[in-house]
Amino acid sequence: MDSEELTKNIKFDDSGLVPVIIQDYQSGEVLMLGYMNKEAVRRTLEQGETVFWSRTRQTFWHKGDISGNIQKVKEVRLDCDGDCLLLRVEQVGGAACHTGYRSCFYRRFDRVKGLVVNSKRVFDPDKVYGKKKNEQKS
Amino acid sequence: MDSEELTKNIKFDDSGLVPVIIQDYQSGEVLMLGYMNKEAVRRTLEQGETVFWSRTRQTFWHKGDISGNIQKVKEVRLDCDGDCLLLRVEQVGGAACHTGYRSCFYRRFDRVKGLVVNSKRVFDPDKVYGKKKNEQKS
Repeated sequence: MDSEELTKNIKFDDSGLVPVIIQDYQSGEVLMLGYMNKEAVRRTLEQGETVFWSRTRQTFWHKGDISGNIQKVKEVRLDCDGDCLLLRVEQVGGAACHTGYRSCFYRRFDRVKGLVVNSKRVFDPDKVYGKKKNEQKS
Repeated sequence: MDSEELTKNIKFDDSGLVPVIIQDYQSGEVLMLGYMNKEAVRRTLEQGETVFWSRTRQTFWHKGDISGNIQKVKEVRLDCDGDCLLLRVEQVGGAACHTGYRSCFYRRFDRVKGLVVNSKRVFDPDKVYGKKKNEQKS
């Protein structure tokens, strides 16, 4: 696929990045938000699996490299302004979040209780990443 | 509601903003991505309707002010890193996008055809905003 046909329509920000919403292609659940630069978009299209740019680690990040929880890209959509991508994916392993939850948005804001976790962990991050790597994303 | 309980857990970026994914609370369709600063989050919680910070116009933007297509907030979720919000909303008027489409992500990337519109317009933006205001968001 010629990724240039897509990337020429993307307005990357001053850091050369575009936010990418990751959504489960079947359930519609929003799993996470990541960032890609032009090369990450190219690799994602080429591999058919999400490759992000890690802003904290300043490196490419093939989602699932450590955990095995890769994301197979089923659909790529661009918004009206060209400054946000929506990728509908098949989430392998059942969890997108490095904390072991299915979605990174596992906390709901409750008017009385504050932030409340209302999801169940799919995996134990200590077992998947080891304690040292627990802070890294999956 | 005490918005401080939420905002103290949000990691706003260097510009004081946090990206906010807007999702239809019933269909699960991702409608748009907007940005909020602390005050926009406070107003959103207080009013129960989305109030964004417009980066292009550098002003608060109560979604639907012109079009009437407001977004009633049904659920607020925060991601693992605290640097992205997910708001599940009731989209009044059936369309979130200023172009008249239900979702801002009305274009799909096709490997052969490039970017393809595969949604139908809900309203005519010229009639809603007038030709001059057509470039403004709804």
